[in-house]
Amino acid sequence: MKNSSDSSQFVLNGEMLNQLNATVKEFVNRWLLNQPFFANKEMPQSTNGTAMCVTVVVLLLPIAIVYFRRHCCGNGRLPKPVPFKVSLPDQAKPNWKGKRLSSTEVVDPQNPNMIQCYCPATGQFLGSFPSKTREDIDLIMKQAQSAHDEFRHSSFERRLRVLVSLREYVLNNQDLIARVACRDSGKTMLDASMGEILVTLEKLAWVIKHGRKILQPSKRKGPTNLFMKMYKGAEVRYEPLGVISAIVSWNYPFHNLLGPIISSIITGNAIVMKCSEQVVWSSEFFIKLVQTCLRACDEDPNLVQLCYCLPPTESNGQAANYFTAHPTLKHITFIGSAPVAKHVLRHAAESITPLCVELGGKDAFIVLDSVTALEKLSSIILRGSFQSAGQNCIGIERVIVSSKNYDKLVSIIAKRFKDDPFRLGSDIDHHVEGVDMGAMISNNRFPQLESLVKDAVSKGARLLTGGSPYTHPKYPQGNYFQPTMLVDVTPDMDVAQNEVFGPILVMMKGESTKHCIELANSAPFGLGSSVFGNDYQECNYVANELKTGNVAINDFATFYVCQLPFGGINGSGYGKFGGEEGLLGICNAKSVCYDALPFVSTQIPKPLDYPINSNGKAWTFVKAFITASYTTSPWQLIKSVMSLAKNGN
Amino acid sequence: MKNSSDSSQFVLNGEMLNQLNATVKEFVNRWLLNQPFFANKEMPQSTNGTAMCVTVVVLLLPIAIVYFRRHCCGNGRLPKPVPFKVSLPDQAKPNWKGKRLSSTEVVDPQNPNMIQCYCPATGQFLGSFPSKTREDIDLIMKQAQSAHDEFRHSSFERRLRVLVSLREYVLNNQDLIARVACRDSGKTMLDASMGEILVTLEKLAWVIKHGRKILQPSKRKGPTNLFMKMYKGAEVRYEPLGVISAIVSWNYPFHNLLGPIISSIITGNAIVMKCSEQVVWSSEFFIKLVQTCLRACDEDPNLVQLCYCLPPTESNGQAANYFTAHPTLKHITFIGSAPVAKHVLRHAAESITPLCVELGGKDAFIVLDSVTALEKLSSIILRGSFQSAGQNCIGIERVIVSSKNYDKLVSIIAKRFKDDPFRLGSDIDHHVEGVDMGAMISNNRFPQLESLVKDAVSKGARLLTGGSPYTHPKYPQGNYFQPTMLVDVTPDMDVAQNEVFGPILVMMKGESTKHCIELANSAPFGLGSSVFGNDYQECNYVANELKTGNVAINDFATFYVCQLPFGGINGSGYGKFGGEEGLLGICNAKSVCYDALPFVSTQIPKPLDYPINSNGKAWTFVKAFITASYTTSPWQLIKSVMSLAKNGN
Repeated sequence: MKNSSDSSQFVLNGEMLNQLNATVKEFVNRWLLNQPFFANKEMPQSTNGTAMCVTVVVLLLPIAIVYFRRHCCGNGRLPKPVPFKVSLPDQAKPNWKGKRLSSTEVVDPQNPNMIQCYCPATGQFLGSFPSKTREDIDLIMKQAQSAHDEFRHSSFERRLRVLVSLREYVLNNQDLIARVACRDSGKTMLDASMGEILVTLEKLAWVIKHGRKILQPSKRKGPTNLFMKMYKGAEVRYEPLGVISAIVSWNYPFHNLLGPIISSIITGNAIVMKCSEQVVWSSEFFIKLVQTCLRACDEDPNLVQLCYCLPPTESNGQAANYFTAHPTLKHITFIGSAPVAKHVLRHAAESITPLCVELGGKDAFIVLDSVTALEKLSSIILRGSFQSAGQNCIGIERVIVSSKNYDKLVSIIAKRFKDDPFRLGSDIDHHVEGVDMGAMISNNRFPQLESLVKDAVSKGARLLTGGSPYTHPKYPQGNYFQPTMLVDVTPDMDVAQNEVFGPILVMMKGESTKHCIELANSAPFGLGSSVFGNDYQECNYVANELKTGNVAINDFATFYVCQLPFGGINGSGYGKFGGEEGLLGICNAKSVCYDALPFVSTQIPKPLDYPINSNGKAWTFVKAFITASYTTSPWQLIKSVMSLAKNGN
Repeated sequence: MKNSSDSSQFVLNGEMLNQLNATVKEFVNRWLLNQPFFANKEMPQSTNGTAMCVTVVVLLLPIAIVYFRRHCCGNGRLPKPVPFKVSLPDQAKPNWKGKRLSSTEVVDPQNPNMIQCYCPATGQFLGSFPSKTREDIDLIMKQAQSAHDEFRHSSFERRLRVLVSLREYVLNNQDLIARVACRDSGKTMLDASMGEILVTLEKLAWVIKHGRKILQPSKRKGPTNLFMKMYKGAEVRYEPLGVISAIVSWNYPFHNLLGPIISSIITGNAIVMKCSEQVVWSSEFFIKLVQTCLRACDEDPNLVQLCYCLPPTESNGQAANYFTAHPTLKHITFIGSAPVAKHVLRHAAESITPLCVELGGKDAFIVLDSVTALEKLSSIILRGSFQSAGQNCIGIERVIVSSKNYDKLVSIIAKRFKDDPFRLGSDIDHHVEGVDMGAMISNNRFPQLESLVKDAVSKGARLLTGGSPYTHPKYPQGNYFQPTMLVDVTPDMDVAQNEVFGPILVMMKGESTKHCIELANSAPFGLGSSVFGNDYQECNYVANELKTGNVAINDFATFYVCQLPFGGINGSGYGKFGGEEGLLGICNAKSVCYDALPFVSTQIPKPLDYPINSNGKAWTFVKAFITASYTTSPWQLIKSVMSLAKNGN
């Protein structure tokens, strides 16, 4: 933990910031008024967000084009994308009419070894897939290893060709990808665009732009030893590990799958993705998409493969455990819950396989007294809490508001719910209008959500809206839960300590900035967090005190989009994916030491060579060598160098 | 794996190198001849290692002094060392006369919960210590947590004061420290000076010099998104994790203990060291030394504590497992063997504690055809194989020689053994003369070593010397094993696949450079390796092909001294300690994202705000936003920016 003075990079306080803001806005407004294309429009007022948005967009256009030329046209080093086509199953097409299941279960009622896929928003049956067996897993691993044996020597040119081709496909097929993701997860198209496509394209673009450079050898400082430093060079080289895996959660079936694949390709690894049994249908489609791209780029499609298993039992040969302990795997990224993580860790221990463990969070969204724009903030809070029905690793799990703003913010959000109650449903086909929130992945956690609400209310929280499952008149088989707002929550309530991972907005009151920090740190998790305030120094202080792996200052979850290393501490796991650390973490960081001067190399000095002529002399010699190497006293240095010369033969 | 052309930083081939070498040597010789202080000495010839050594030392002196002024005197930012005194037990004094045990066991024969300490070289009894209980462990953790709660906010000034004080003490008390380490491990003073003191001082000096800078926040590139990149700043800040632990092996009782402690102090953590039950006596002394230093610097001595337990049983309450699974621990560095590692990993899984796992190795020492100076190389091989009786994580486990040099090198080393057989014994007191190798830590692996030799011979290897335990006439209770030389070893022999961790030199013949690489990669470990040759490009190619975490080119194990990140892959574990990665690995690398421009911050655009006015419009808006952000087509960019403006309100 640093002193705030250490790491604070900004010296603007809230007042200066507001003043600067006002000045710039005025300048922009005046300038815009004089532009011909704006002559017939009313001028945006400082509080009008939409107009401001348009303003920013128009302002950015020329900059964007300049930037564009420099980075994409002028810089011809990137390979050209290879076009490819993926054949679409009927279920992936718009307005598909699938039969609805009467009971939505993951295990096929006809066959306990088959996984049944369906749309959680409508109950439509998507298909059945056999749970992978030990034999399937061995074959997958063998194919992956064989693909990697060739790919590990691949040039960055080859790796980048796959990635730019993928980027092109995703960019031009946003509707298709969103539809497939929504069909299997029940979310709305808007949620998919933000949570599946935007973040995946950012990851792709970032890796395409920076990946090659990040993976170049990293020169190191070498030793401090007076003698060795003269002639020893040191660097770290990044080599692919081999066959790696990512066991990912179902909440973003496209993004969670593509993220590790992108990292795997740029680093020259092969990857076996293990998806949740909840989203096998869409994962099969997305993996086929990537394999088609690999094939189009003349790469072995077995570089990226898919595995899925029902939970381990005697009857399925504990296949899931067999997968985790497989000796072929050189690294596993696990995204899921703590109980499953412990299970996975115990089995991975058999092969001493390294893991990156990303569990849930209880992310705090802290609103300090200095915040003034509470209306705008309420929009961010609603999006951060209810996107994908709250099923986000870094969704807002607790809004912690310092005393001055607490009542105001509660009443603003409560009013929004009262004036415009959320409309639940599915907009997967036809872009149906008037849907605010989609379904949850399954109804098996509904009793838990209800009991969290009940416990909180029994301990003094106020339930302002929601709190129960919702039966959609059009989709009675859909898994809907009412958007819920719980206020006056305190740390002793279960809902303040357990990850909700659902559409429940929890509000807690902090007595002071310090108390807000204490509240934020009172849960056992440590994944993400945000802090809002007009005083940057205070925000920065709070950011330093939060016991989490990630913090956004005056924003929500941008640390994820920004391609910073992503991962939690404490109950949220360990290790980082994303960003530089994410790429380097699936490499063998090979430490290499070499002679930097051509005419000097290490030799065993005579007194230390076998047979040891004199143990006394040898000791004196090395002691003098060590002293000369590390002393800070000039006198000691001279003495020891003399002793070295004297005892050197 | 990179192409050799990618990462080769040097273009000097063997011939050019030799020529340059000769030119420089000639120049140096001529220059020296003209110096008055050399007038009465004979001039060193090019093959005279000792004289060359003196030459280099004398040459370096003026450079050293200049360097010294710049880095130590001129740079006054380092705190001054605080002097302190450690009271010495009799056993730590020279010429101590301890009674010899008749049977050397770790468990006290009088009390199964006491650990019995003795000198493996002489059998002298050092003391008895109670194995720590669950209650002891809880108390240690509580004290460490409390010390850390204050220390986590400590300035670098405070942390560095402790380290410079430690450096000063170690530098001025080399005899004492070596004696204590030898007394508990049975090695020779020379082995201790190289393996305990030199490496520890290098680590101290390196961390003192570079630690503060490494732990500063690391600015990151931020997003590539066309809109966000304009105003989002991103950095990673390094904060202490809390209470950490290192479970370390017995082979270097001083260095293995001090290394993690140095890293812990500079990063602001508290650490609970767990030492092997083989070296409790010396560990107690060294921890007391560090605690005395902490106290002298006005720091809480509980920042560094010691724990040790006998193997977990019902009767001792499985205390060792309780330690590993303790929820207070935020990170564990484990240095030991694979079976114990699996056990530790399974228990650490309970608390989802991250680990750095450093297991053994089967380090190859590759000698290519281009090597000419085989005599000199044999000295490096002997030191790398027999230092500390071969009990080194990165000792030479296999000398793999390409065909041209194989027979020559075998006969050179065999002749050295024949002409000057190694003399075993103890030089701890009095600097007794004529001791080449010390004892092993215990005799419990002697049968295994003998069986490795027997298996190899039965499969065609030639045993040129040694192969059995040795009863020392003066120290019949000492654990001595004869220095052993096995040649013509092939990969099917147990000794080629299992870590020996003892004084057995294994030589294997490679048919070609490619075959040498295959042989090196044929063992299940991947820790260190070295490659020797006069053609740097070829060495570099070999270095890239070796499946290990560390490689030294034309040197032995210098990657460790150079403070590069240290760790293995495959059967050698995962994670890195040492170097930058070692320090950052015990920090919470907190990803922080903030607004870089004062007048722009993220807002929810109107079409995406709840209630969603039109799902169709929202989709079109975000799609246009995404396309504008990531497209590489200027036309698509303009179209999508227009669409953004149109759908923005």
